[in-house]
Amino acid sequence: MAVFREIFTFNTTGRQDMHDITAEINAIIARSGIRTGICHVFNIGSTGIISTIEFEPGLEDDFPRILQALIPPSNLYGHEQAWHDGNGHSHLQSTLVGPEITLPVDNGKLDCGVWQQVFHYEADIKPHQRDIVVTVIGE
Amino acid sequence: MAVFREIFTFNTTGRQDMHDITAEINAIIARSGIRTGICHVFNIGSTGIISTIEFEPGLEDDFPRILQALIPPSNLYGHEQAWHDGNGHSHLQSTLVGPEITLPVDNGKLDCGVWQQVFHYEADIKPHQRDIVVTVIGE
Amino acid sequence: MAVFREIFTFNTTGRQDMHDITAEINAIIARSGIRTGICHVFNIGSTGIISTIEFEPGLEDDFPRILQALIPPSNLYGHEQAWHDGNGHSHLQSTLVGPEITLPVDNGKLDCGVWQQVFHYEADIKPHQRDIVVTVIGE
Repeated sequence: MAVFREIFTFNTTGRQDMHDITAEINAIIARSGIRTGICHVFNIGSTGIISTIEFEPGLEDDFPRILQALIPPSNLYGHEQAWHDGNGHSHLQSTLVGPEITLPVDNGKLDCGVWQQVFHYEADIKPHQRDIVVTVIGE
Repeated sequence: MAVFREIFTFNTTGRQDMHDITAEINAIIARSGIRTGICHVFNIGSTGIISTIEFEPGLEDDFPRILQALIPPSNLYGHEQAWHDGNGHSHLQSTLVGPEITLPVDNGKLDCGVWQQVFHYEADIKPHQRDIVVTVIGE
Repeated sequence: MAVFREIFTFNTTGRQDMHDITAEINAIIARSGIRTGICHVFNIGSTGIISTIEFEPGLEDDFPRILQALIPPSNLYGHEQAWHDGNGHSHLQSTLVGPEITLPVDNGKLDCGVWQQVFHYEADIKPHQRDIVVTVIGE
């Protein structure tokens, strides 16, 4: 049994962009040498989202649109009235969907579906350099 | 410390069916021999959901209904216009709620509430054979 | 590699209260002696929520309000018509957001953002004594 931890970084535009981060995660699992276990993926910060999706242009449009419909930008949020930084909805969207996911590892790589990718969604309204913590546990 | 991994399979109807999978998970934990730790449960594929609920007929009706209200079927999704397979909402529902959960293990079984079951929800519109990956880690 | 498990307890009012539980979790990680790995946090029961948020008074108002807007209290839920306990929406809110989260551990503490706290939300309509299971795995 071993634990292996690595952080990777990328830049977002702050325009509701989605990043397919499956390849970066698999590269870390390969470096870990772990063949069987789990892999935890975490966005440091309170306005990012991590989940799985079939990563294709249609859903890349649909996911931001449905999130904005469920929790729309508004200056009526208490967070806005205190901080005036325009991202009350960003915080709420991140809390609702979640900033992390755990995935099974088999044969030294993610055991997801063929049309199931791990993605990061920038819920904030300004660009960020995002640090993603990947922790692999197993043997 | 050890890791134990097993996959179990069942069939869904594609009519928003929910399955209580608590017994299958506890059986795998028993076979693992692990007494204390965590258990990760993952739906392979991008149109299934796993979470916990009080599994009773009322909520079995309510959960699908509220999901369909929040993210309704529609042919206006980008996914629909590209692929015409009628399940754009299914993908979005799965991404929102999530395809996985982690649960504590104590005394060789799940440490959930008496009225808290682990369930799978078929968000897709057609039947699937679902493969659920269960990974137990602990000692 | 080791696993360390502890439960902590607190009381909620049943009036949609949020608790910042970050300090309790870090205290358990410190007692575990584990420096690198993951920490799993789980609410026993089907009407509690755990996630991360920037814990400040604005969002403490906003999060309950948006949840009540997305899944409002109603006596039309099947759960209500069977059990008449007024908390059908509480169950659905917990299932949607989730009763658990996994977080990275680095240098013997949570590796979250400065403005990213772990919180518990009481989705139920009556007070509860809540048992939160914390499991730390790593080395």
